[in-house]
Amino acid sequence: VAKRLEKFKTTIFTQISTLAVKHGAINLGQGFPNFDGPEFVKEAAIQAIRDGKNQYARGYGVPDLNIAIAERFKKDTGLDVDPEKEVTVTSGCTEAIAATMLGLINPGDEVILFAPFYDSYEATLSMAGAKVKSITLRPPDFAVPIEELRSTISKNTRAILLNTPHNPTGKMFTREELNTIASLCIENDVLVFTDEVYDKLAFDMEHISLASLPGMFERTVTMNSLGKTFSLTGWKIGWAIAPPHLTWGVRQAHAFLTFATSNANQWAAAVALRAPDSYFVDLKRDYLAKRAILVEGLNAVGFKVFPSSGTYFVVVDHTPFGHENDVAFCEYLIKEVGVAAIPTSVFYLNPEEGKNLVRFTFCKDEETLRAAVERMKEKL
Amino acid sequence: VAKRLEKFKTTIFTQISTLAVKHGAINLGQGFPNFDGPEFVKEAAIQAIRDGKNQYARGYGVPDLNIAIAERFKKDTGLDVDPEKEVTVTSGCTEAIAATMLGLINPGDEVILFAPFYDSYEATLSMAGAKVKSITLRPPDFAVPIEELRSTISKNTRAILLNTPHNPTGKMFTREELNTIASLCIENDVLVFTDEVYDKLAFDMEHISLASLPGMFERTVTMNSLGKTFSLTGWKIGWAIAPPHLTWGVRQAHAFLTFATSNANQWAAAVALRAPDSYFVDLKRDYLAKRAILVEGLNAVGFKVFPSSGTYFVVVDHTPFGHENDVAFCEYLIKEVGVAAIPTSVFYLNPEEGKNLVRFTFCKDEETLRAAVERMKEKL
Ligand SMILES: CSCCC(=O)C(=O)O
Ligand SMILES: CSCCC(=O)C(=O)O
Repeated sequence: VAKRLEKFKTTIFTQISTLAVKHGAINLGQGFPNFDGPEFVKEAAIQAIRDGKNQYARGYGVPDLNIAIAERFKKDTGLDVDPEKEVTVTSGCTEAIAATMLGLINPGDEVILFAPFYDSYEATLSMAGAKVKSITLRPPDFAVPIEELRSTISKNTRAILLNTPHNPTGKMFTREELNTIASLCIENDVLVFTDEVYDKLAFDMEHISLASLPGMFERTVTMNSLGKTFSLTGWKIGWAIAPPHLTWGVRQAHAFLTFATSNANQWAAAVALRAPDSYFVDLKRDYLAKRAILVEGLNAVGFKVFPSSGTYFVVVDHTPFGHENDVAFCEYLIKEVGVAAIPTSVFYLNPEEGKNLVRFTFCKDEETLRAAVERMKEKL
Repeated sequence: VAKRLEKFKTTIFTQISTLAVKHGAINLGQGFPNFDGPEFVKEAAIQAIRDGKNQYARGYGVPDLNIAIAERFKKDTGLDVDPEKEVTVTSGCTEAIAATMLGLINPGDEVILFAPFYDSYEATLSMAGAKVKSITLRPPDFAVPIEELRSTISKNTRAILLNTPHNPTGKMFTREELNTIASLCIENDVLVFTDEVYDKLAFDMEHISLASLPGMFERTVTMNSLGKTFSLTGWKIGWAIAPPHLTWGVRQAHAFLTFATSNANQWAAAVALRAPDSYFVDLKRDYLAKRAILVEGLNAVGFKVFPSSGTYFVVVDHTPFGHENDVAFCEYLIKEVGVAAIPTSVFYLNPEEGKNLVRFTFCKDEETLRAAVERMKEKL
């Protein structure tokens, strides 16, 4: 294995899902719904396959999907973007992240992450040869420590990566935090890469795209995907929106990482993104009910639960149950209790910082959530 | 754009396809069929979508597809491979190539390519920080210059990448050539990455997987895909077969490049790979007829045509028509004649070497091939 990837293990999501299957645990670990995506989107994909949309899609996206992405971005942020020059379709947001890092970051560039962070950020930065720095968001509110951020930015800082709503904590970056981050980036000529895949699961606060703040569009790559919003995580349709000079780098890397993304899925994704407003309203309402069941249950079980304002995740402190660390607790939970959760220590440069925290997902049907809570009430 | 990608342009396939559309040219450039994939495979994908195979697939592949790939490899090469430990499903062979480079090659490692080469080889090696060397296969027969290969291999050589049947030339590596390459690799402890996506389009010679030669499996990553064999280039299902110590690197990179590949397409790919032998026989028969039409036509038009033993491509010398180089000829051909072909100079480290050669594809229905020939007869 190449040195750049030596330190990374099998992704924690695969590890936990495999263990969950092995022990028959209810899987509240990896973030994939146990219910299906909407019929009208599935039917659109079926129609596209029947219509012969089975050869290479255009490399940077099926034209109609690029347009639908631009339309949705306009609706969400008020920004006009050029579907031909500023939108790139990728194989999931994971590929958008990889293409952004490999397409825009040079060896030795410094990039700042907020810990806990999704594991692919660090791994793809390592592929790009970047120097990774991280700033830790701490419970209970996971607020951005602004002074720390200010003093971490140096003249070698090329980019800051942020994820809002934030996986794993459920934190949403506030307008105030985003304004400060924006000024710091402009002042220091720093790029921003934002992962906004949970933007439609913003419950307690309005989601704000950093790109929409004054002066920010020109220095921001905004990444998103179909999977979370449409409960179709397996379709692997993502995208990156950025001004032409940044899109160029993203597309260059994308062209040689995957070249193009599944054609029929793209046609269906365009249909999905044009869903009526009621779709998004219903989605949020359903997830609010799920969140209530899980949060109430976890409290009743005896965890210290940190508030989740967005995403389909909630983070808890497991220490009331007396295990050494998050990994030990999750192993016990899977094997002895029959519920799977994700340990968070892998999401920090210094694993110690995550040792008290584990993440549960509520992207499961209500019955499953209740069953998991019952198991924990009984056996923890 | 990151320095590693600065020298690469928009891929030639996208450039030519865009130009072809703009000028209404018959596109014998980019290799995608203008006919559809088989009904039984499309129906399998539709069934999988209906059955709710719409969430993340297992990262390294849907279990049944890993098994089907291993079964097919056994049938083709006689080798037994472990579907769980030696097969990784990727988003097309393009991603298999990227994951192999980023997962196994360290900065400064030397990798040897045979020119002309598919453009993503050089670009992904550049992402990995490798030092690229190339050995040119020259017309008329594109034979491997063994002495040159021997003297190019050094103690810094980490891998050789080869592609058989070979895009763009249609050359197939002979058993003798492969035996020599195998000994050189074993002698010098060099890995081999083989791109075999055209293995089912081997017309004039038996296709040989380098991995099947004695002592080679343990040092070979064999890459393949669904697209060419099943006329479903837009589904983006590929794979890499390698011993566990190499699979580990490929999977580590894959996990962070795309994480997983479109789930429903994978279920259908498993069905495809179990097609009866007659499917492969019919495919070859159809392509032989197409090749005959195109080769005969190109000869009649006045090109010097080099024999194509495999793939769905044929390379010609365009110099009888008096254009300065391959790019100038292709521009003229698209704009004035109404036929698109691919210039080959982009497939060499030294573009001069390709300036007389252009590539045509015959993965089009017979009527289209005849129409293209007619246009060239009339206007060239
Ligand atoms: C790509 S697998 C991980 C799914 C996910 O986004 C999560 O569980 O955090
Ligand atoms: C990935 S686009 C290129 C298609 C192809 O394999 C070719 O035309 O050589």
